[in-house]
Amino acid sequence: MNTQPVDFSGALTAAALHHLRSAHPLVHCLTNDVVQSFTANVLLAIGASPAMVVDPGEAAQFAAIADALLVNVGTLTQPHVEAMLAAVHSANLAGKPWVLDPVAVGGLSLRTEFSLELIQLTPAAIRGNASEIRALSGMSSTGRGVDSGDDSLSALPAARQLAQQTGAIVAVTGDIDYVTDGARCLAVRGGDALMTRVVGTGCALSAVVAAFVALPGDRLENVAAACRVMSCAGELACQQVRGPGSFTPVFLDTLYLLNGEALQ
Amino acid sequence: MNTQPVDFSGALTAAALHHLRSAHPLVHCLTNDVVQSFTANVLLAIGASPAMVVDPGEAAQFAAIADALLVNVGTLTQPHVEAMLAAVHSANLAGKPWVLDPVAVGGLSLRTEFSLELIQLTPAAIRGNASEIRALSGMSSTGRGVDSGDDSLSALPAARQLAQQTGAIVAVTGDIDYVTDGARCLAVRGGDALMTRVVGTGCALSAVVAAFVALPGDRLENVAAACRVMSCAGELACQQVRGPGSFTPVFLDTLYLLNGEALQ
Amino acid sequence: MNTQPVDFSGALTAAALHHLRSAHPLVHCLTNDVVQSFTANVLLAIGASPAMVVDPGEAAQFAAIADALLVNVGTLTQPHVEAMLAAVHSANLAGKPWVLDPVAVGGLSLRTEFSLELIQLTPAAIRGNASEIRALSGMSSTGRGVDSGDDSLSALPAARQLAQQTGAIVAVTGDIDYVTDGARCLAVRGGDALMTRVVGTGCALSAVVAAFVALPGDRLENVAAACRVMSCAGELACQQVRGPGSFTPVFLDTLYLLNGEALQ
Repeated sequence: MNTQPVDFSGALTAAALHHLRSAHPLVHCLTNDVVQSFTANVLLAIGASPAMVVDPGEAAQFAAIADALLVNVGTLTQPHVEAMLAAVHSANLAGKPWVLDPVAVGGLSLRTEFSLELIQLTPAAIRGNASEIRALSGMSSTGRGVDSGDDSLSALPAARQLAQQTGAIVAVTGDIDYVTDGARCLAVRGGDALMTRVVGTGCALSAVVAAFVALPGDRLENVAAACRVMSCAGELACQQVRGPGSFTPVFLDTLYLLNGEALQ
Repeated sequence: MNTQPVDFSGALTAAALHHLRSAHPLVHCLTNDVVQSFTANVLLAIGASPAMVVDPGEAAQFAAIADALLVNVGTLTQPHVEAMLAAVHSANLAGKPWVLDPVAVGGLSLRTEFSLELIQLTPAAIRGNASEIRALSGMSSTGRGVDSGDDSLSALPAARQLAQQTGAIVAVTGDIDYVTDGARCLAVRGGDALMTRVVGTGCALSAVVAAFVALPGDRLENVAAACRVMSCAGELACQQVRGPGSFTPVFLDTLYLLNGEALQ
Repeated sequence: MNTQPVDFSGALTAAALHHLRSAHPLVHCLTNDVVQSFTANVLLAIGASPAMVVDPGEAAQFAAIADALLVNVGTLTQPHVEAMLAAVHSANLAGKPWVLDPVAVGGLSLRTEFSLELIQLTPAAIRGNASEIRALSGMSSTGRGVDSGDDSLSALPAARQLAQQTGAIVAVTGDIDYVTDGARCLAVRGGDALMTRVVGTGCALSAVVAAFVALPGDRLENVAAACRVMSCAGELACQQVRGPGSFTPVFLDTLYLLNGEALQ
């Protein structure tokens, strides 16, 4: 029987972040063209190490070396499909976790078919908005582009079903983020509407999820910690800025300086 | 008979921006590798919604859904040609406007031939610097790279001719921007030389033009409003910064906060 | 016989930067997907002019027109290989200098084999970290990703050997940068550890090296001047910021405003 969502603890987030900064995980990012630089800078700011290696042969080599892999289908093309499959198979063989960000899955054919193929390949985690998680789970969606037309809570049943079906931790993000393993569910609060005016905050969160799933321990809690690190830093940054331009530098500084006190 | 350029009104710009923020147009961007993130952030700051969908099949699907399409040839390759043609044909079938940014057209073969092909496909607007507009119109150009070697006023006859030939609104931008439908011509002042030290300000303007041509009303005025929003925010931002690095966050904040008072 | 490293002079750096700002070199960048925008903005800030032209045919045309070419293999794919070879051959035919940044060369096959092929094609300069320079020189390396596991001084013998073998100026960068033509060696101090938390600072340095090798005069000194401009601006910027987010705008402003006084 499904439990009700429980608010995730700041103390556990602080402990996971502390662990991450010691482990300094190397995250192999196969992500979209728009957010490459921001994604890398977010990973560097939290203390992880990003690398974008995109040739199919090299991607297979590198996925076995890195600590985790991110697959984001935001600007998917046929050559990316080949590289992503090579990397996912290699990560699986090497026992390395990988994370799927199903950007705008639902209405667009190539990414939707490919993402439905990918979820058969044992992702460690899937991070999307409500319409993306609904679409992956086979439920209907109202999204037109990358912005979700659905509320994250309403997609929680779809998230639980997707988690049960794939074995992945599923994070459906929105005003409140819900993280589930199909049975348990953690709720993560924070963030700010201004973050939706900055490209790549969701995509970068998926990369941070990849960094955190490289850690040992309870994977459900590690994914929730990733969400909480980003929502906490986002909320703190938004209190200090006038708009989406000044958000980016302040957000990266805040991630870099984030400590247990702020998280609790 | 051609009329003399007339200064475009701040009140009309404010009205168009107000309209844009209500309409929240979804802009499909097929743009170059260098400016993807900045372009998306500029569109988000003004209240539009960007999406980069680049696979040929998906680009065709998405161009029919989006409110406008941007085609920027700055880092054109053969695969981009295929996706851009698919998107343009789909946009035309669906009755959605599309905008061409002919980056560095003139000396380089692939983009020049392709852009000459594209202008036969009824763009709603074309935005370029003087040497690019001259090159597209068949007149000679002195540009070597993406920076124009020509003055925007001297390219106005070329712009008028290109507008008459294609049916597009043509914006030739520089110290002063001129926007013409082949007969009428609006002049847009503002901006600052510092903006030429920040990559992507011209490319992002073309994306903003795409957002504004999605609005109903006089398309000539809508394109001029796009130019004025960017030149006004650029000028205001430059008054507050020490150099091109601090320009970007302040510019995005200024776009986000821009109101009728500042525009008039 | 090899001379000991000599600290490079601030006065020579200031003179080279002054020269660069008058010459305004056009730098053709074939670089990785992650750092395109930052690279362009760094070149614009120092007074050079960037252009990314990536189709193989256009890359060959443009390399003959530009003042220098950068080849960075950070996100190498087979289509990039073709464009890079076309551009390098064209630059060589036209007598234009080109610079190699062998990102993460060592463990990954495509880039390693390709970079070993490229160094036969008379690069003007090669800029890498210790593990990359060791790998190119045939000595063993400990790097796992783009971060070097080696100390720059320990790689100086490899750098000298690589310079002798290729005729290139080799810059091995780290806490201290060493620049050698195989006999002479200049040491460049400055920078800050925070710069390793910002993606693209090394890649952008290679683009700046390309801008400086377009200048006449002693190429060894010009490469050292490029390193010193970046390390000086980086050090000054780090004194003013709280973290890696605010670093980027302040760094670009500092490059833009950098003068002889600061460099000496």
